Amino acid sequence: MNQINRVAIVGGTHGNEFTGAYLIQKFAQFPDLITRQSFDTVTLLANPNAFAAGRRYLEKDLNRCFLKQDLEDPTLSSYEELQAKSIQHTLASNRDKQADFILDLHSTTANMGLTIILVNSHPLNLKLAAYLSQINPLVRVYRCSFKSIEEIPFVNSLCKLGFAIEVGPIAQGLLKATLFQQTEELVYTILDYVEQFNQAEIPSTNDTLILYDHLSVVDYPIREDGTIFGMIHPELQDKDYQALNPGDPIFITFDDKTILYEGTSTVWPIFINEAAYYEKGIAMCFTQRQQINI
Amino acid sequence: MNQINRVAIVGGTHGNEFTGAYLIQKFAQFPDLITRQSFDTVTLLANPNAFAAGRRYLEKDLNRCFLKQDLEDPTLSSYEELQAKSIQHTLASNRDKQADFILDLHSTTANMGLTIILVNSHPLNLKLAAYLSQINPLVRVYRCSFKSIEEIPFVNSLCKLGFAIEVGPIAQGLLKATLFQQTEELVYTILDYVEQFNQAEIPSTNDTLILYDHLSVVDYPIREDGTIFGMIHPELQDKDYQALNPGDPIFITFDDKTILYEGTSTVWPIFINEAAYYEKGIAMCFTQRQQINI
Repeated sequence: MNQINRVAIVGGTHGNEFTGAYLIQKFAQFPDLITRQSFDTVTLLANPNAFAAGRRYLEKDLNRCFLKQDLEDPTLSSYEELQAKSIQHTLASNRDKQADFILDLHSTTANMGLTIILVNSHPLNLKLAAYLSQINPLVRVYRCSFKSIEEIPFVNSLCKLGFAIEVGPIAQGLLKATLFQQTEELVYTILDYVEQFNQAEIPSTNDTLILYDHLSVVDYPIREDGTIFGMIHPELQDKDYQALNPGDPIFITFDDKTILYEGTSTVWPIFINEAAYYEKGIAMCFTQRQQINI
Repeated sequence: MNQINRVAIVGGTHGNEFTGAYLIQKFAQFPDLITRQSFDTVTLLANPNAFAAGRRYLEKDLNRCFLKQDLEDPTLSSYEELQAKSIQHTLASNRDKQADFILDLHSTTANMGLTIILVNSHPLNLKLAAYLSQINPLVRVYRCSFKSIEEIPFVNSLCKLGFAIEVGPIAQGLLKATLFQQTEELVYTILDYVEQFNQAEIPSTNDTLILYDHLSVVDYPIREDGTIFGMIHPELQDKDYQALNPGDPIFITFDDKTILYEGTSTVWPIFINEAAYYEKGIAMCFTQRQQINI
């Protein structure tokens, strides 16, 4: 990859994550903001019906519909499954119009700052992530544990370059000006970086990058009937990316009993108390903090 | 009213306001917590289908379905309209089982602390509100501007005594342990107060109460097609119950222009950036702060 010809900025993949959806509308209205000399930039409101309804999705989480086998399965026909196939067609199938870099804008109720979610370890993604985290202390880099592209159900499976951005904490269904502006600035910085890459002038970065590598997901305390009986412990709430050590409080039950983290090694929890993950049985994700050479 | 015989604690009137819904489940599991000697306490999960779906409502906002004329209208038959009629039957129609005091537990994405929402000025409601705000600095008292009971669309229209509690800031669809516990404590304090009232031993309070009286609602900046083009200004975000003076920033547009408050007198905004109110065209409510004698 010597040249990036087309960047796609995607928002509203989850219809109640307003920051990305409204940024897409702003970029569509003021295209000069995202125009750079050496490549085309396109925008996509990924789930317009869910956005109109103010819901994450109508029938199925769109950002779980991009498994290759599902995109090729003609029997899958829910609104979001069809939408995923349409997005694949728009961004990936047509060689002339194919996106070389996809930036998917999300928000989260967890205190994730400006998190870059890598689904692979492409050297350019790592370099860009290192650059962004170097110039902005709010940027964190989370790397998923997918072993192959076939395992990735996200929009970002359509393209090796690019990633999702998770910005928070912010409630679903609203805008916060500070996070809107921080996300917007990050988009411009990424576009500028791609422009410099195309000119073979990418900014120099540190040789190392702090990565948070996915380890596992942790569910809430649940009863036999599947209902929860506890919450994130107050001492852990909003402590995303901070070390959780064996014996630290992790949950508090509805009747005020503290549940401790009983693992044997330190982990770095993220996505702590993400509203959309209650239905997925995820109270948080454990990660391993590490410094890598790039 | 010399004796309160039955208190109803209602939660999940909005299905994505988890604090009240899960407190109701806790109280149902541990009824001793809400049992007092001189009255019965009943609990009600008001919108179980919306709670199961993790949504505010399925077809219509349940807490706008309690207008007297709507409850009496046999043609209204959406899920929530039928649910409202069923709740009226349970809490208000049957003289033997009628609730004398209704406490409706809500949460909000706005920074409302522990807000008591009065729909009338019954002396006992005012005294209780004064007591609660005296012993807990997080408690605020907001009084709606309904002129008669016929105008009140809330659950609390079913009964002169009681009020809603709005607790925030908290995103929809999740629990925060600190707010869960603060709400729980407030419920117990209210039950204890009712118990003392029944014993003719209500705690003494100040003779005055700070009230925030409803003035008007304010919409976001909107285009002719009804879509918004601005957000709450960062300087106003989370400043519920603080004075907004003429000339203060109120919104910021997507293209970074500040919109000032152009009124002629100071107001006290509340419900600033409540997610559920985007669809209602409400960016905030203006109130008038005043001290009244009780």
